[in-house]
Order: sequence, then structure tokens, then C-alpha cells
Amino acid sequence: MDGEASTSAPANATEQPDANDQVITPWDVKGGADGRIDYDKLRRDFGCAEVDDELVRRIERLTGVPAHPFLKRKVFYAHRDLSPLLDAYEKGEPFYLYTGRGPSSENLHLGHLIPFQFTAWLQRAFRVPLVIQITDDEKALWRSLKLEEARRLARENIKDIIACGFDPEMTFIFSDIDHMGAGGSEGSAFYCNCLRIMSMVNCNHVRSIFGLTASDNIGKIMFPAIQAAPAFSDSFPHMFGAKKGIRCLVPCAIDQDPYFRMTRDVAQRMGHKKVSLLESRFFPALQGENGKMSASDPTSAIFVTDTAAQIKNKINRYAFSGGGETVEEHRAIGANLDVDVPWKYLNFFMEDDMRLREIGREYGAGRMLTGEVKKELIGVLQKMVAAQQARRAKVDDAEVARFTTVRPMPDLFAGARARAAELAAMSSVLFYSHQPPTNGIPWF
Amino acid sequence: MDGEASTSAPANATEQPDANDQVITPWDVKGGADGRIDYDKLRRDFGCAEVDDELVRRIERLTGVPAHPFLKRKVFYAHRDLSPLLDAYEKGEPFYLYTGRGPSSENLHLGHLIPFQFTAWLQRAFRVPLVIQITDDEKALWRSLKLEEARRLARENIKDIIACGFDPEMTFIFSDIDHMGAGGSEGSAFYCNCLRIMSMVNCNHVRSIFGLTASDNIGKIMFPAIQAAPAFSDSFPHMFGAKKGIRCLVPCAIDQDPYFRMTRDVAQRMGHKKVSLLESRFFPALQGENGKMSASDPTSAIFVTDTAAQIKNKINRYAFSGGGETVEEHRAIGANLDVDVPWKYLNFFMEDDMRLREIGREYGAGRMLTGEVKKELIGVLQKMVAAQQARRAKVDDAEVARFTTVRPMPDLFAGARARAAELAAMSSVLFYSHQPPTNGIPWF
Repeated sequence: MDGEASTSAPANATEQPDANDQVITPWDVKGGADGRIDYDKLRRDFGCAEVDDELVRRIERLTGVPAHPFLKRKVFYAHRDLSPLLDAYEKGEPFYLYTGRGPSSENLHLGHLIPFQFTAWLQRAFRVPLVIQITDDEKALWRSLKLEEARRLARENIKDIIACGFDPEMTFIFSDIDHMGAGGSEGSAFYCNCLRIMSMVNCNHVRSIFGLTASDNIGKIMFPAIQAAPAFSDSFPHMFGAKKGIRCLVPCAIDQDPYFRMTRDVAQRMGHKKVSLLESRFFPALQGENGKMSASDPTSAIFVTDTAAQIKNKINRYAFSGGGETVEEHRAIGANLDVDVPWKYLNFFMEDDMRLREIGREYGAGRMLTGEVKKELIGVLQKMVAAQQARRAKVDDAEVARFTTVRPMPDLFAGARARAAELAAMSSVLFYSHQPPTNGIPWF
Repeated sequence: MDGEASTSAPANATEQPDANDQVITPWDVKGGADGRIDYDKLRRDFGCAEVDDELVRRIERLTGVPAHPFLKRKVFYAHRDLSPLLDAYEKGEPFYLYTGRGPSSENLHLGHLIPFQFTAWLQRAFRVPLVIQITDDEKALWRSLKLEEARRLARENIKDIIACGFDPEMTFIFSDIDHMGAGGSEGSAFYCNCLRIMSMVNCNHVRSIFGLTASDNIGKIMFPAIQAAPAFSDSFPHMFGAKKGIRCLVPCAIDQDPYFRMTRDVAQRMGHKKVSLLESRFFPALQGENGKMSASDPTSAIFVTDTAAQIKNKINRYAFSGGGETVEEHRAIGANLDVDVPWKYLNFFMEDDMRLREIGREYGAGRMLTGEVKKELIGVLQKMVAAQQARRAKVDDAEVARFTTVRPMPDLFAGARARAAELAAMSSVLFYSHQPPTNGIPWF
């Protein structure tokens, strides 16, 4: 499909590492010698395909809506098997979306929002159902986090996730701990699929993919099966019945790729198609790409709970600048956009392509100062975070229940089928007439 | 408690094996050079204590009922930490029982009945609650058994188990697949305890105890946590609330000891007491101790579904005789009781101690012939199996639901507390006045 020889080949994480090599695993992100991540190398090492302009245009054509900034700017820059999924969608065979979160902290930061904002867009654009897995079990296995605390964080995080704007009619959000046995006297479809996957994966396999060792606890060893299960539609009989083979697309950060390599390895034996993936770059810490966003260090990131004043203060004080040391130097040589955090953040969250391009040109040439760019960014983030907070304030327990209740969800693909019918009725000329111009902004 | 230095020390199964060594694991039972099992060596290798006459008398005294033949004849011959459990019981601190079955075949054979018959007796004698785990998940992980088939077998096996005579008011029978997530929106207490145990056990630990390798599937690696969880009372909030530290006694065959070594290793960190164990010898195949009872070989065992004629035919045709080659030789040297299967079977299932002793004496001296002994055995087994079948015929779906429904089970310890009060009111002289004479039958 992507032409990968074997998806279980030793990944970046387990090759004999040079101390200066970048190391990217689901639990650790470490840049190369210069502290930076070579995203193209990472994509090639993982064996993923590149999201190119043609693919972005195709998604716009199929959905009939302009690409999300994360897509046209290649924040989501790598994929697996997206083309066969789009081929099928175009022919009227819908898919569902699956993403998730490990609830390790009370409050989400901006980096956490990225897959959810993008998934919400994908759901609206493709008109497809979505499952969101909250891996509270994983956090208990990996961190010294009590299960009660993991479940509490799961419930809090679910509210922030709902505030990202998903369709309650087509979205099912579940905590692993709550959902593991759902199904009761008819047997848990979810646990059964976890077991089936576990029976198909041996320790060597998990160790080669994830770099786990015999000193790791047995929960960590089995957990990849639990993250794999939602990629198989019959894990959710209340949504998809017992039907196998419904395609699944996972939008996620690229560090999650190992989980889905393993998931793809077992797909055929599970009677399912291989899951497709759309994988993002990482959102940098305020201190830059070699910093680390952490809930325990409030200066490292903007959190969804930050006030307008906190956002302003954090950006002004901590956001690493690629500008010159002095105004004179800056005017002379311009800003180094490759390392400038305000510029990177704007590329994620500024919607206006024209203004973004202008800032890049002016700032890179030294005609705009860091302070001016930060001011633009502060405005963008204050607006976005305030909107997120306003939506979050409206998420009460009833709203959580709307998303998390195991309930019959018929006709989940009606919207996608309708879109396929629209597509079939359109001429190819018409498709392209709605096309926004290709965005030519240099990216990272 | 039992004086073991470390319960996780390499067990019999993982020492450098001599090809002639006996190998006993939960999945494989292989005798020594002569095909026979050295039970004393096995007990010492595992680090278990011996069930001696004093312990049997103490159980009779505490329960007020004569010891079950499996106890007085030391079918259950090894234990861990039984004395502190009995000390506590005597002081009015009750315990619960936990046993289980892996549903790998449609019909149980006589060997399968042994732990259940004994557990039913323990429940009545001590007046305590019981949980029975049906590890349908294990069978799917270990055998090429589809989950649907494992669940079907679980349901069938549960009926045979119920027919062994448990108290429906105090017994909870569950399939792992059905029960894993029980608890729903309050979180699954059972899955949570499984996760807690998984987080405390690493791969090296499991591999040293069970002899698993990196080629084993990740489900096998994590499964021991699932068999461990029922030994912790807060896995069953509908029975015991959230209370920790309720003592647990597991009656099982000694090949299950590795699971509970691991369970005991994590007990303290789980906030619980170490589980106590009462462990049995194996029930031999019709062909003898070095044969193997198998559902796929109907000549290897008596099944609970066998007719009176089938029982008669199997015993007469297949039960290995330790008698002489000819009548003359037999009359001269007598039967070798150490290898004689009819004699062994009688020791399990003939209730009449006096008659059993007489048969042993007469048969061993050559005055009874194998045919006569087999005739006695056929009568005993036909009666027992017919009674089991009659009880099984009465187990309908409603009766299954009585045992398997997650339901409030208050006052589970009322009977045990009442017995403790009786004990406290009795004089020690009175205790012993009810004592049956010590059984002096040579055993195995």
C-alpha cells in the first residue's frame, strides 16, 4: 500500500542509536545533535508517505471544503494508506475516524489540542463518525499514577476534548477503564478484540516496535493491543454492528506511529483492512523545539486554562525568539524563522494565510521585530483560547454523557454517503472551481 | 509465612531441566524418568507446606464437620499460609474462597470435578462466600480457540460447575470476557485490579515464574494478572464493597501454584494479605499417571456425560491394572497399588473409609482380583456421575443467572461469624469429642 516491506521492521527507536541521533517513541521525543527534529528523516525511518499538495487538493475536492491550515501547511505531513481510503470514500465507501489521548495531566496545552482540532475538522469535512479513546489504563501502567486519578483526569480531559467541537451524533468518547467490558452478558466486543490482538502479537514483536525490555511491566507489554483495538470497527458494535472491514483513519502525532504499525501488522488476521494514518509534527515548547512542554512547568506551554494576561506574559517572556540580538542586528540580518517560536506558533494557529505570509516575509527580512510578531501571536492565541474556554464552560455532565454513553448510533454513514452521491453528480471541472489557491508559504 | 525466602524464585519449570526431570507448569504436566510424579519433591520445589493430620484435625474442629475424603486422604496435600487463615477464622475473621476453570472442552472429566467438589465442601463447612473465575480469555490466548467458542464452552462448563453443589446465595461465577468491565460508569473494579497487578509485575518476573519466552504472545504475558485479580477482595465490590484485606483461600491443583506465587508477590503492594492455598495432586488418566486425560481421547478419562455402560466399559477396558499378569501370579505377589488406576480412583471417590482400607489390604495381598476392584469402582463412579447428571439436568438458564448475575450480596460472612461465635462458646474438650478417627490409609 505504502510500499513498506514490513511494518514491524525495527523502527527508529530500536536501531543501534548514535548518542546524537534523534529518538522518537510514544514516550520520548529527543531531537538530533542540534536538538531539532529532522521530520523528513523521521518520516522515512518510519516508512510513511509524504502529504503533498496533490493529496491536500484531493481532500479539498472530495470534501468540498478548503483544507484546514494544519493540512495545507503540512502540520499533518505524513500518512499511511490515505490514498486507498480516499479512493474508497470517493466510491461511496465511508470510513470512521479514531484518535485519542492519554490523560496524564489536568489541563491540556495547545499541543494537545492539535489532533482534536484537526479531527473535528476531518469529521465535519468528511461527515464521518469518530471514536476517541482515553487511555487512562495506559497512564496507570506507564506513570506512577493511581487509577482513580487517571479516571478523574480522563473525565476532565473529555470536557476539554468535547469543547474542540465534535458532532455529538457521530462521536463516541470512551475511557478504557470504563469501556473495557462494555457489552456485559453478550461479551465485551472491545475486550474480545484486545484479546484477539494480544494473541497475534508476541513479546519480540512489541519489543522491536516499541523498544520495551524484559524489565518493563507486563501491562506496558500488552497495552499496544488496547490502543490497536479501536482501529477495528467491530470493537464498537453499538456504532458499527459486527461489521468488519470498515475503513478507519487515525489522525495523530507521528510519535504514535509504532502503535499503528503493530495494528496494521495484525489487521489481515483480524479480518480487517489496515488502518490509515495522518500524522503530525510536534507542537514546540515555548523554549523551542528542544524544550519540552510539561504540565509541571507552566512556563513551557500555553494551557487551555490560561488567562489572556497569562498568555501575553508567557509569550513575551518565554517564547524563544529567532530575531537578532539587538534591533540593529535584527534589522540587518532578519529573524531566523527556523528556530523562532512565535513564527512557528503562528503557522499553527493564524488562520489568515495572506497575513501569515506577510509576517514571514517582513520578520524574516528584519522589517518586523520579535515584539511585533509576538503581539500578533498573543492576539491569535487569546482569541482561540477564550473561544475554547467559552465552549468548555458549556460542557456539563449531560453533555459528557451525550458523548460517552454507549448508545445505538444508526445511520452514522448517511452524511458520507450523501457526499459520495454529490461527488458522483459533479463534474470534475466543478470540483476545482471551488479550490482555494495553493498555499506557498515556506513551512518549518 | 510459609518460610519461603522469595516466592518468585525460579520454579521447577524454569530450572535447568534434566530430560528426566518432572516438569509441572499450568500448561504441562510431565512426570520424571519413570513417568510418575514425585509429589513431595514438587511440593518442596514449589516451597509449599505439607497438609498433615494435625491440620486436617484442626479444619474438622473449626468447621465442626468431618474432613472431606480429598482432605483426609491428602488429595489436597500441599498448602500455603493455611494456618494464619485458620487462626484468623477462629477469631471471627472470615475469608472467601476462589477457584476457577479454563474452559477448553465441552465436557468436564472426573479430574475437573475434584477442585469443585472440594470447594463446595469447603464452602459448606466454613460457611463462606466463593468466587469462581472462568478464564475464557486465557483459552483464547493459549489455544487456537475462537473467543466465541471459549465463551460458549464457558457457559456449558458453568452448568457442570453449578451441578457440583454450590450455595447460590454465596457464590459468584463469572467469565473473564463477560466480567472484565463490570462496573460501568463507576469504572471496572476488576479491570482496575488487573491493571494494578500488571503495573507491579515485569516480564522477567513472569518469565521466571512461568517459563514464558519472548516468542509467547503478549496476552499470555499479561494473563497471570487476570488470574491474580480475584484473589483480591476489592475486585468484587458487589460482594465485598471496596474493603481490602479480606483473606482468600484458593483450592486448586498444584500446577496452578505459579499463578499464586506471583499473586502473593504483589499482595502487599496491592494493600492486601497474601492469598492462602490448598493444592491437590492430579487425577490420573485411565492409562495411569504418565497418561494424559484429554477431551479429544474419550478412552483417556471418564466424563461427566458418560453413561453407566460407558463407565463400565472404560474402566474394564482402559483402567491400568497393577495386578499380576496371571491370576496365579496375582495371587502370589498381589497388586502394585502404586500404579493401579482402579485403586487410585477409589481413593478419590469411595466415601467408605473402612471398605477402602479393606480393598487396599485384600487387593495388595492378591486376595482380590483386578476385576473385583474394578467392579467396586464402576459402582462408585456410576452412582457419582448419575447424581452429577441429575443435578446438571436441573441447571437451567435461570439457575445460571442466579450464580452469574452481578448483584448485591450483603452479609456474606454472617454464617462464618456465627460459626466463630459457636466456636468461642465451645470447650476444647467438646471440639475433639466429635472427631472421627484419624484415617491411616496409605496414600499413593
